[in-house]
Amino acid sequence: MIEPDELPPPTPAVAAVLKANERFYQAIETADLDLMREVWVPPEVGEAAAHCVHPGQAAVHGVGKILRSWALVLARMSYLQFFLTDVRVVLIEAVAVVTCVENILSNLPGDEAGQAGFAGSHYEAVNVYRRESDGGWRLLAHSSAPVFPTSTESTDAE
Amino acid sequence: MIEPDELPPPTPAVAAVLKANERFYQAIETADLDLMREVWVPPEVGEAAAHCVHPGQAAVHGVGKILRSWALVLARMSYLQFFLTDVRVVLIEAVAVVTCVENILSNLPGDEAGQAGFAGSHYEAVNVYRRESDGGWRLLAHSSAPVFPTSTESTDAE
Repeated sequence: MIEPDELPPPTPAVAAVLKANERFYQAIETADLDLMREVWVPPEVGEAAAHCVHPGQAAVHGVGKILRSWALVLARMSYLQFFLTDVRVVLIEAVAVVTCVENILSNLPGDEAGQAGFAGSHYEAVNVYRRESDGGWRLLAHSSAPVFPTSTESTDAE
Repeated sequence: MIEPDELPPPTPAVAAVLKANERFYQAIETADLDLMREVWVPPEVGEAAAHCVHPGQAAVHGVGKILRSWALVLARMSYLQFFLTDVRVVLIEAVAVVTCVENILSNLPGDEAGQAGFAGSHYEAVNVYRRESDGGWRLLAHSSAPVFPTSTESTDAE
């Protein structure tokens, strides 16, 4: 487990995984579907195995459907910014499990100019990367789970 | 990727992963904390790397804290039943990524006898298992993301 802000420079493998993870969020922020395609495992792997959970949604399976789902998400968003915190990497052979908190600042649907203000929200992400034969890390599974604002132990009083 | 209901008998490795996944949900259903401890990676691995996201909550890190969080969850639940659907296994060397839909039937908080009826809910789970040196599969990361009832493309009309 590596927390980049606290530890010495990561190993080359961890650095490569963190770079892949940054590219994933860059693809979302810049609505770059070509980059998004490069981020995910190639179709011959991903058509069967790739898995994506958008917040609050049922899972999408297969790279083709996943990219279409991202096209829909990105088309709806005119402003979306990620601040990742608590980024952790667990490396096991050809697999990297990255967990992080996605702190998202976005405009509201239908409010292109952000005139109604911006919405802040938090999601717990699990991103599983696979090392391909060329040494590159590609996204195999992504899950983003909403964190409810009321969830900070407020139910302890029950 | 294996969907147990559709395909011929899984390979021994996939069968072992599915068995480990069943034990995890059995530990929840039977509120068996000893079994829950056996399900997760051992402390020497899991104190740093283990990761658990309960629905709507911020992530819990480290096996010790994770087991305490489960103790809290299980203490609150007097009835909880899982029906797993769309169980998929991706095996990569010593890592197994299991995704499934958790269909949960539970009583309502404070209603031990279920007199107020039961609540049905759906969660997208990602469970990452690691093969230990003894060949057993242990849970390294669990994330359960709520699926909102209104999420079935109802926003397409925007």
